Amino acid sequence: MGNDRLDVVGIGNAIVDVLAQASDSFIEEQDLPKGSMTLIDMSRAESLYNAMGPGVEVSGGSCANTMAGLASLGGRGGFIGKVRNDQLGGIFRHDIRATGIEFDAAAATMGPPTARCLILVSPDAQRTMATYLGISVELGPEDVDHDLIRRAKVLYLEGYLWDSPAAKQAFVEAAETARAAGAKVALTLSDPFCVDRHRESFRELVDGHVDLLFANEAEIVSLYEASSFENAVQQVRGHCEIAALTRSEKGSVILADGEAHQVEAIRIGDLVDTTGAGDLYAAGFLYGYTQGRDLPTCGRLASLAAGEAVSHLGPRPSRSLAELVRSHGL
Amino acid sequence: MGNDRLDVVGIGNAIVDVLAQASDSFIEEQDLPKGSMTLIDMSRAESLYNAMGPGVEVSGGSCANTMAGLASLGGRGGFIGKVRNDQLGGIFRHDIRATGIEFDAAAATMGPPTARCLILVSPDAQRTMATYLGISVELGPEDVDHDLIRRAKVLYLEGYLWDSPAAKQAFVEAAETARAAGAKVALTLSDPFCVDRHRESFRELVDGHVDLLFANEAEIVSLYEASSFENAVQQVRGHCEIAALTRSEKGSVILADGEAHQVEAIRIGDLVDTTGAGDLYAAGFLYGYTQGRDLPTCGRLASLAAGEAVSHLGPRPSRSLAELVRSHGL
Repeated sequence: MGNDRLDVVGIGNAIVDVLAQASDSFIEEQDLPKGSMTLIDMSRAESLYNAMGPGVEVSGGSCANTMAGLASLGGRGGFIGKVRNDQLGGIFRHDIRATGIEFDAAAATMGPPTARCLILVSPDAQRTMATYLGISVELGPEDVDHDLIRRAKVLYLEGYLWDSPAAKQAFVEAAETARAAGAKVALTLSDPFCVDRHRESFRELVDGHVDLLFANEAEIVSLYEASSFENAVQQVRGHCEIAALTRSEKGSVILADGEAHQVEAIRIGDLVDTTGAGDLYAAGFLYGYTQGRDLPTCGRLASLAAGEAVSHLGPRPSRSLAELVRSHGL
Repeated sequence: MGNDRLDVVGIGNAIVDVLAQASDSFIEEQDLPKGSMTLIDMSRAESLYNAMGPGVEVSGGSCANTMAGLASLGGRGGFIGKVRNDQLGGIFRHDIRATGIEFDAAAATMGPPTARCLILVSPDAQRTMATYLGISVELGPEDVDHDLIRRAKVLYLEGYLWDSPAAKQAFVEAAETARAAGAKVALTLSDPFCVDRHRESFRELVDGHVDLLFANEAEIVSLYEASSFENAVQQVRGHCEIAALTRSEKGSVILADGEAHQVEAIRIGDLVDTTGAGDLYAAGFLYGYTQGRDLPTCGRLASLAAGEAVSHLGPRPSRSLAELVRSHGL
């Protein structure tokens, strides 16, 4: 599209979410770990879908949600991810472009269908995810738009993609382009099980390539096999410039330059669905960061965006985050 | 599936809704009559979709929404409609079956894609619809499952289908099967513009085949080219056994046996999106009617189901209507 400067370019899975209400017993019967993300194949996706209640389809994908949140805050961004030329791929493309995020890659004309994530929202507003990655898992170095990355202040990488060797290689090449262009590299660890699967290579990535690290409590504890959150906080120091560590309703802590900034969670209305909370936290933080705001303000913007995300069904903002920020005097 | 008795079998368009928030000026720019349904072709659907904001996909279709509402109330039903073997068709099939409604027709393997309705929700919660009918408009007599209809107490027909000659023929044949099996035939007029397009044939249908007529104020005024709602009420008498005429927040009036029952609207929480209000009114009414409840109670059930429909985004119930009915002592 343009050649203008962008705040953030993200690389992540291009996924359409299918959200349905479900009881705890249904989640147990389906043998899904509550609150986490499980990768499933096409046949499991079909049987789970058949068993689920009526759904609501909305574009998702962790990094893509973050980019949509950034756009809603007034930031400028681009997205790199892989869709098929099918109806779900058309929905994903429309929705992210409609937020103002650049997403120009052609849809694949062969291969598996566009990814979908079956999300079971339990009565306590917790989300349990089962993802069929489809074509998204085939993202590789050939899909990285280096010209797009050179326009960004921050390159943002989604840890979920680390399950694919080709995507790992794409990440490393993208990070090198970003660094060479003077951009910062940010990573979200995405999921504790994902960290379990790839602990050593995640640590190498963080040490060698990452300036900003996003993780929740379970993820950072897993990454450093720590005995507690406090212990993990000690260990992460020195491995990256900034770490933003989230703890759901307990808020978050931002580590940088030997300091630790405590940030409170912000609640907006009822707690409806926690899908997208971490993604929108990153959106708020990255928006503040690329606008040159101080770290405590970045944290408050992050808390506010996450607070909006959990107040409705679905992972992306349901209202203008820029207006919400103004109404909160930020 | 089974051979058990059903409360209602419906025939209607099989549609997936794409809901997006939109300003009044956007609706005007797109030259769409606010609050009504406009039929659009594929290329118009693409250009409108490209111009719209991020969407939420949920199964829709007026009659299908009514059937989903019936199931949520505890009623038993079946649906007849036409989908393609594409992703939207899979979503439609899953969602209606997940409510408990029987829908067994095979998906078409050729022809246009599954229908979609682009719904613009304005700040006043009004919905403006633009429908690309796709394969749905090809429903004809060969799609009518007469065995399914013979199991029903009521056959419910969606007026929107009247735009297609083959569907008209399907309706008449279905109505004859229902009558021969001792079932009642219900019709919803669906839309004032649809009534304008087919006034004479709708009048013939009502006179010759319809026992229960559902219409809103604009539709019944259009059907009888009446000078006022009161005048339309006078004219509808004698043309069908029961007429349920809705007037949004003013409630509804049920005409039968020379009597007129006034029914108040029921409001549940904030008014968010009026999509599905009329469809769920019919669901509540038909549930009460097939359970043998008196007409004022049918009206209250209808108001309650419609009240739930307008309290959230999307046309189908977001909670158990059976529980809602119990909590209201009905």
